[in-house]
Amino acid sequence: MPAPLAVSLGDTAGIGPELLAEAWARRHEERLPVFFAVGGMRLLEAAAKQRGLALRAQQIANPAEAANVFAEALPVLGDADGAYTPGEPSCETSALAFASLQEAARLTVAGEASGIVTGPIAKSRLAEVGFTHPGQTEFVAEACGVAPEGAVMMLAGPSLRTVPITVHTALAKVPGLLTTNLIIRKARITAEALRRDFGLASPRLAIAALNPHAGENGRMGDEEARIIVPAVAALRAEGIEATGPHPADALFAPHERPRYDIALCMYHDQALIPLKALDFDAGVNATLGLPIIRTSPDHGTAFAIAGKRIANPGATIAAIRMAGECAARRFSA
Amino acid sequence: MPAPLAVSLGDTAGIGPELLAEAWARRHEERLPVFFAVGGMRLLEAAAKQRGLALRAQQIANPAEAANVFAEALPVLGDADGAYTPGEPSCETSALAFASLQEAARLTVAGEASGIVTGPIAKSRLAEVGFTHPGQTEFVAEACGVAPEGAVMMLAGPSLRTVPITVHTALAKVPGLLTTNLIIRKARITAEALRRDFGLASPRLAIAALNPHAGENGRMGDEEARIIVPAVAALRAEGIEATGPHPADALFAPHERPRYDIALCMYHDQALIPLKALDFDAGVNATLGLPIIRTSPDHGTAFAIAGKRIANPGATIAAIRMAGECAARRFSA
Repeated sequence: MPAPLAVSLGDTAGIGPELLAEAWARRHEERLPVFFAVGGMRLLEAAAKQRGLALRAQQIANPAEAANVFAEALPVLGDADGAYTPGEPSCETSALAFASLQEAARLTVAGEASGIVTGPIAKSRLAEVGFTHPGQTEFVAEACGVAPEGAVMMLAGPSLRTVPITVHTALAKVPGLLTTNLIIRKARITAEALRRDFGLASPRLAIAALNPHAGENGRMGDEEARIIVPAVAALRAEGIEATGPHPADALFAPHERPRYDIALCMYHDQALIPLKALDFDAGVNATLGLPIIRTSPDHGTAFAIAGKRIANPGATIAAIRMAGECAARRFSA
Repeated sequence: MPAPLAVSLGDTAGIGPELLAEAWARRHEERLPVFFAVGGMRLLEAAAKQRGLALRAQQIANPAEAANVFAEALPVLGDADGAYTPGEPSCETSALAFASLQEAARLTVAGEASGIVTGPIAKSRLAEVGFTHPGQTEFVAEACGVAPEGAVMMLAGPSLRTVPITVHTALAKVPGLLTTNLIIRKARITAEALRRDFGLASPRLAIAALNPHAGENGRMGDEEARIIVPAVAALRAEGIEATGPHPADALFAPHERPRYDIALCMYHDQALIPLKALDFDAGVNATLGLPIIRTSPDHGTAFAIAGKRIANPGATIAAIRMAGECAARRFSA
């Protein structure tokens, strides 16, 4: 059996703690792998109580103890803790999120945890307490010694997997940032991760077009012919099952989705619009290309609904399940 | 009761004729309004036979006769006709599509039909037989004496309505084409059409952002602050319930969709990706801002599957139903 998963709290004023507690409460019915929370002993009990859950948390001294505890109690490692203040983020709640993330990443890189599931943070708030990375993805990549461009963001739900080739950039800059090499590099990392961690022997990559109707033979933009077609050809030449460029509007239709394992999209919203339209409550953000396994629920801190018993645990449960499945494939072979 | 609807054949080598026949065959169970086909008497019977439908077509001398015929037979007006050649488009099939479209538009503009439902054409093929417009939308607009920029394309399905503010243009050109005035003009036409034809007394317009996360306060593009925010403010000042700019990735999530009646999108794929992901088999393309009612199934000719009994009639049925409902509101008041 692989080591347990480490789950970070996220901003403790957000919905992270209550969903962590909810996931543990549903561990049997959801058949979740063994995980432990990094910090937040009293805080998690308070969040569970607020949500109406009968949660027992139990301190553990090291990750190896989690397996014995998990059936009866939520294992908690480390003594970082604080007051539960749902909907009231502060420097304390940010600092606790940061501490939990750092320790969870450290344990995972050290191999004591088989993967890390990160709770939702508020980036701008974390920056105020010394977090210097654009996001948790970059933080985790650096903790593994991987350059930011070596980490690929994948969004996945029950209906769809997508990877945005360009991510957090103004739409006007997207055409200038796209290159054949960028697409090839991200596609290679994606294909390798789907083989190694997702059990797909020969993953099928659908490469989306940038322009409407894939540009209609150059009538609406030349990026397809100039940038994407050569990338698809190069990928196929090295044995990767890449197809495209596909007109993006039809690519996510129900009859198209079974034809590929993942869609590589040219920009953020092209990847995120279909994912959130179809799989909002179960969307997982996974980082591919790292020596460790990392997933995260694809939602934010949702301070406005924290502590109100309405936050949906689907994405947290899906993130834990996915990390566990990837770990089982990677470490049980 | 309003006048009947005129339905054009579309390219007769495509899936238009068989779906027209299928819609008539389902007229009772789908509670469809009275419609007639413009041309294609023998051709429609052949298409129906190929699809395994027991269709009786009956020639009518004028639209007013359709109501008496409809329950027993598919009314057909005009003698434009030809051989049924599914999957084999030619100059004859294009010319027949063009003739059917012209006559259907003429009858609708003249008030003899209460609306026009256009079957799918192949634009490049129609261009070879003298069709000089970019698409059927522009053709119908001109037939009504409306300038192309006065016609607004709406995509609608059971889950969602969207309007693309820019349409058939390279993605790189979108930021340069967007203006506050363009958004305001299309939003006004949209709001007026939803009031008049769709029964929404005070339609709620959600205006999408252009950049990821709505630009995050200018960190990823300034079009939100510079172009979209002023448009939303101006629309609200004149009493239109406009909101936004909304981050586009979350705008189409299940819990967001009930909060607006229509999403105004900044570019083609932003509007079409969610519509086709959610409502592919029932997507309707309607033209707003015209003195006549015009709808169309939101799919193409699909030559590859024509005559094979597999084309889904959902969008054709939805287009006929929508046109009928709009006509009932506009003409029965």
